[in-house]
Amino acid sequence: MVILGIDPGFAIVGFGVLRSEPGRQSLLACGAITTQAGLPLPTRLLQIENDMAQLFDTFHPDAMAVEELFFNNNVTTGIGVAQARGVILTAAERAGVPIFEYSPSEVKLAITGYGRAEKRQMMDMVKRLLNLKSVPKPDDAADAVAIALCHTRSYTSRLQDPNAARPGSGRYAVKHPSK
Amino acid sequence: MVILGIDPGFAIVGFGVLRSEPGRQSLLACGAITTQAGLPLPTRLLQIENDMAQLFDTFHPDAMAVEELFFNNNVTTGIGVAQARGVILTAAERAGVPIFEYSPSEVKLAITGYGRAEKRQMMDMVKRLLNLKSVPKPDDAADAVAIALCHTRSYTSRLQDPNAARPGSGRYAVKHPSK
Repeated sequence: MVILGIDPGFAIVGFGVLRSEPGRQSLLACGAITTQAGLPLPTRLLQIENDMAQLFDTFHPDAMAVEELFFNNNVTTGIGVAQARGVILTAAERAGVPIFEYSPSEVKLAITGYGRAEKRQMMDMVKRLLNLKSVPKPDDAADAVAIALCHTRSYTSRLQDPNAARPGSGRYAVKHPSK
Repeated sequence: MVILGIDPGFAIVGFGVLRSEPGRQSLLACGAITTQAGLPLPTRLLQIENDMAQLFDTFHPDAMAVEELFFNNNVTTGIGVAQARGVILTAAERAGVPIFEYSPSEVKLAITGYGRAEKRQMMDMVKRLLNLKSVPKPDDAADAVAIALCHTRSYTSRLQDPNAARPGSGRYAVKHPSK
């Protein structure tokens, strides 16, 4: 299985591509889609959609894992990130790639065994689990790799639970109330 | 000129299509794109993108006007609306339709002359300005018509200001800080 992890944004979208085999995960590629500051947001969003389509064409992922969005700090930045995230979800849906989402604490728990792990602990574990010489750069790529890794580990553990073994049990859940 | 006004959402996207001639605006069409509750959000977003593309194909608008997004009340709903708004902006950009955005108070000011007008005052003015027998339904369509009308009136007044007369002066401004 090939898993694409995505860290959404409108200035930078981190991506990480993992190959997942039983008991072994390896990093195929990681990096970031960046859009030019100063360009109008719609122009940046269209570039993200086109670049996402290219990622799907290149790696043919079996699943895309993406973090749930919470607005903690800057709501204005959050609106921009949410708009980009919508475009990313749409690109995956158009490409027929199943989408799975995880909360930040689920990612931390899956990778370190502790839902409130520090960022550095997370990155150390990502490096060890994938036998990397260094933590992927930029940070957005590293975060995307962590989300992909979370999916391979959550998915594996879920398969051991007969109640959750049916395909699609971890699929994108509708959590949004109607507007 | 044909102006498409859009009231974004993920459950319902209001649209209003106006023909604007000097001193006269008329309503060509209005309505709503609705997506089915219970479907996964990415499925709903893809439908919105496809339906938006169909609106552009049908009406060939010279401009799209859309409200700026503010999160006042429900942040969770706001995240969903922002994700849909990103998809809508991307669809317009892909279709090559210039995008203009207005704040709620700009819409009120352009239509009633008062930036804090009540909803009912707004709708009465929309009806009068477009010589309609009744206020468009549903509410989302009426809001979209108001946004389109705001654009025709703002654009006209802007053309009378030599400093703002250059094409694109009211175009989508990048207001989002980098993430």
